[in-house]
Amino acid sequence: MEYYSKEISNLIAELSDLPSIGSKSAQRLAFHILGMDEEKVNDLANAIVQARKNVRYCKECFTLTDDELCPICSNPKRNKNIIMVVEDTRDLAAYEKTGKFDGVYHVLHGAISPMAGIGPGDIKLKELMVRLQQNDVEEVIVATNSSLEGETTAAYISKLIKPTGIKVSRIASGVPVGGNLEYIDEVTLLRALDGRTEL
Amino acid sequence: MEYYSKEISNLIAELSDLPSIGSKSAQRLAFHILGMDEEKVNDLANAIVQARKNVRYCKECFTLTDDELCPICSNPKRNKNIIMVVEDTRDLAAYEKTGKFDGVYHVLHGAISPMAGIGPGDIKLKELMVRLQQNDVEEVIVATNSSLEGETTAAYISKLIKPTGIKVSRIASGVPVGGNLEYIDEVTLLRALDGRTEL
Repeated sequence: MEYYSKEISNLIAELSDLPSIGSKSAQRLAFHILGMDEEKVNDLANAIVQARKNVRYCKECFTLTDDELCPICSNPKRNKNIIMVVEDTRDLAAYEKTGKFDGVYHVLHGAISPMAGIGPGDIKLKELMVRLQQNDVEEVIVATNSSLEGETTAAYISKLIKPTGIKVSRIASGVPVGGNLEYIDEVTLLRALDGRTEL
Repeated sequence: MEYYSKEISNLIAELSDLPSIGSKSAQRLAFHILGMDEEKVNDLANAIVQARKNVRYCKECFTLTDDELCPICSNPKRNKNIIMVVEDTRDLAAYEKTGKFDGVYHVLHGAISPMAGIGPGDIKLKELMVRLQQNDVEEVIVATNSSLEGETTAAYISKLIKPTGIKVSRIASGVPVGGNLEYIDEVTLLRALDGRTEL
């Protein structure tokens, strides 16, 4: 990019390194940033540096946060007896958006994947078991993704928890609401059939 | 976003303010940044701040750069007698990528648009005329966009320059290479017809 000056090229290169930002998007973003108020640009850069600097795991549920306890674990209105297990912080956010779950979470930071060499020891499973021992938990809802890795992890968690007598459940898998059967893959259709409920 | 902690929410909000980054993309980017090496994050923030802080117009062609002269105007191999007029720095980059133009540029930073209240005085037209007076220029190639504003600007520039005796040309408008006539709009088809050349 010798037609852009050094610092502009550098900015474009840094932006291109971000996921799903190609070279065209990086150029558009870069020129947008160059046209922003300097104060706004400093706010953006500060937000990036500060968030990264202070990010850590919530000591209770292991979601990414910048305090000792995340906003959910520190909320006295949340029901600490029901724990939803998710793969990452964004999955937690997806359920929070529904506004209908008032329990707490446990973030695994990954899923068991023998193919990728990720075993049970590489995700926050031990930490989940410690939580179950130290707290009075009624139910663990496994909300890992509906992928091979997510299912493997769900089965593993179920085996691990069953002996403790705590109830373990799995979120339903099936046809998404508004989904047209015609466009849905066979595996999902079979799941939906297996998971049918009486009317 | 009360399910994300303060600094993470702030980072997502700052990223969402960028063009073409919706709330989902902003979340994906934010969590990617939170997972990057702290050093890489500082590099990114620095690139943003430095580029914005030092950005200015090339004193010759008015492209965005961080030196007094841009890499093109300061290159002794470029032919200073041919000036290609473009709307913005990214248009300049588009022609540079072809590697086939060895003249220099003039960046208008916009186009005349009566609808948007942008007149000839709001873009770098006066600066172009000064350049033409002070330098020995053979040809001005008008490469503004093929939009209403771009065409209006091209016509205006042509009128302005004609009296000086300097040659003014306009890049061709027509069917893009690889373009299928079936999918091309009528205006472009008529342009291509008007601009036909003998075989």
